[in-house]
Amino acid sequence: MLDKGLMAKDLPLAVTWKDGELFLLDQTQLPLTTVVEKQETAEQVWESIRLLKVRGAPAIGLAGAYGLCVALKEAQNDPLSDFMALMEKQAAYLDSSRPTAVNLGWALRRMVKTAKEANATTSKELYDILVAEAVAIHEEDARLCYTVGEVGLPLIKEGMGILTHCNAGSLAASHMGTATSPMYLAHSQGMKFRVYADETRPLLQGARLTAWELQQAGIDVTLITDNMAAHIMSQGLIDMVIVGTDRVAANGDVANKIGTLGVAILAKHYGIPFYVALPSSTIDHDMPSGEGIPIEEREDYEVTSFGARQTAPEGVKVRNPAFDVTPNELVAGLITEKGIVRAPYTENLKALFGQD
Amino acid sequence: MLDKGLMAKDLPLAVTWKDGELFLLDQTQLPLTTVVEKQETAEQVWESIRLLKVRGAPAIGLAGAYGLCVALKEAQNDPLSDFMALMEKQAAYLDSSRPTAVNLGWALRRMVKTAKEANATTSKELYDILVAEAVAIHEEDARLCYTVGEVGLPLIKEGMGILTHCNAGSLAASHMGTATSPMYLAHSQGMKFRVYADETRPLLQGARLTAWELQQAGIDVTLITDNMAAHIMSQGLIDMVIVGTDRVAANGDVANKIGTLGVAILAKHYGIPFYVALPSSTIDHDMPSGEGIPIEEREDYEVTSFGARQTAPEGVKVRNPAFDVTPNELVAGLITEKGIVRAPYTENLKALFGQD
Repeated sequence: MLDKGLMAKDLPLAVTWKDGELFLLDQTQLPLTTVVEKQETAEQVWESIRLLKVRGAPAIGLAGAYGLCVALKEAQNDPLSDFMALMEKQAAYLDSSRPTAVNLGWALRRMVKTAKEANATTSKELYDILVAEAVAIHEEDARLCYTVGEVGLPLIKEGMGILTHCNAGSLAASHMGTATSPMYLAHSQGMKFRVYADETRPLLQGARLTAWELQQAGIDVTLITDNMAAHIMSQGLIDMVIVGTDRVAANGDVANKIGTLGVAILAKHYGIPFYVALPSSTIDHDMPSGEGIPIEEREDYEVTSFGARQTAPEGVKVRNPAFDVTPNELVAGLITEKGIVRAPYTENLKALFGQD
Repeated sequence: MLDKGLMAKDLPLAVTWKDGELFLLDQTQLPLTTVVEKQETAEQVWESIRLLKVRGAPAIGLAGAYGLCVALKEAQNDPLSDFMALMEKQAAYLDSSRPTAVNLGWALRRMVKTAKEANATTSKELYDILVAEAVAIHEEDARLCYTVGEVGLPLIKEGMGILTHCNAGSLAASHMGTATSPMYLAHSQGMKFRVYADETRPLLQGARLTAWELQQAGIDVTLITDNMAAHIMSQGLIDMVIVGTDRVAANGDVANKIGTLGVAILAKHYGIPFYVALPSSTIDHDMPSGEGIPIEEREDYEVTSFGARQTAPEGVKVRNPAFDVTPNELVAGLITEKGIVRAPYTENLKALFGQD
């Protein structure tokens, strides 16, 4: 299906399309149990997205696109008008599984638009066009991830220590991920380096996902709690930080998982370069600076408990911002598919990606 | 027993001696269940220390001193020589409950020395001398904590936001604690301020203990995960940091719970003063700088699990340093019972506390 050259060896895949079937890795069971579930119905795909079995913006988009194919597979012999009506209905249904996931709606709209613009004469033909479009979305994302990896690869040197935060890995996207992509490429070339993964409270994406996927790929990874990063840096063990991002403002300010800002400040204190890896689709040209980026405040229980176990006093006040904003002056460079963008960010981002 | 003037209102007490009986708050059940256990035997006290029902260096010392009284209570009518032999045996036994707890051995040695130097003629008389000595140790510690609070009190202003890390509170010591002592005093004077408590992974002393004890005392406390501190500071919500310490080197370098160093660096970045509260007994005049302080590396499972639930992949490499060292240049001041010591620390600590 996908060009194998785009894949690092032994990379765990969040979303797989094989022989006309969709398979999703159940990330809620990681890191202890690796269960890949074949998706039989649109309802199952809807549940998988809803229950966070698949998470990470690009991966959710892919699950939605392929999910639409799953939803229409049995309708290939229906009249074309019925097929089209079912397609629109199922696309809206799948989109309702996570209303805030921008990539999900984007992927489903692209699927429906492609189908409508195709001059298909049979449902079977249209189904094949939809499958081809989902695969195209998948390949585009994989290629983007790969290219981000190629751009970032020269930053990694033999023997380095690299710190990462949260999960911007293959589990969140296609194949190589973003922050992890240079690491997977370096590893596939036989380079030796150490990665330190912050556990990333409150939801522990670093412990559950990043540590797991790097371990699966055979990369030397060490798990630490978030508050150990300063000590590890003070010991001279970190030479570079690479993280992903949810949104980059036009001036290069970076919104990412809570804790990223702290890592960036520590890195600056110790003179360690702090890089952010992203496909350029993450750049919000309409957002002048990070100050305007809204910070989602999530529910208290994520902080006051883990799993079923309450770990904080009943009724205690809690803050639970899901993201923070790292000002551009703390960023050594933005690793994009078109190259590493450095300060001054407003000018350089506009020059490389501006649409005017 | 203790002068009520030394106590902030409604302060939860780790160790209580009342009507000839020892009561320990079972901190392993906090924050969900408040169980105060009467200690009936030396074995029970030994278990309470061993199982971390009582923790924090000064609190463990108190439990040991009073525990020796518990152990000898039934021997008050025995011949004096039997009583003395039992005292030595039980002191050694109680000291074995946590071999690394410096304060435990110190308190028990002081108890035995006092008994030996007393010219008691009966076991009953000696028992009373031991009880009086345990109470004296308790009062001295409470007075130290209170004085640290008085010294730190002027730093707290109406409406401030104060960040603290780990638990250097009443639960770890007598009555007011160290880092919390200025807060309790300010609160008892009706001052309004907000405290942010880092949860303090891996063992969550901030979430389980600090948030709980401040909440009990009626102080406005908000729990955050460790990696939220930078974001909260960036929002202008923190005006001062106060933490405790396990050991201060002669040059003012501060060893404290893992994560303290990161908080100090973030505070410096945002121009927020970072204070450390301590009784001067915590200053190690023989340790020229923090570089020489050994950092205990604890077991992996603390990082790879949360309660009984494993949260990281099987076999993943882990670092688990229990402490870190904050260099003196990040410290705005050391709040001691003799005043706030500021840079240059080597000279100023020597002038105030030097023994030459």
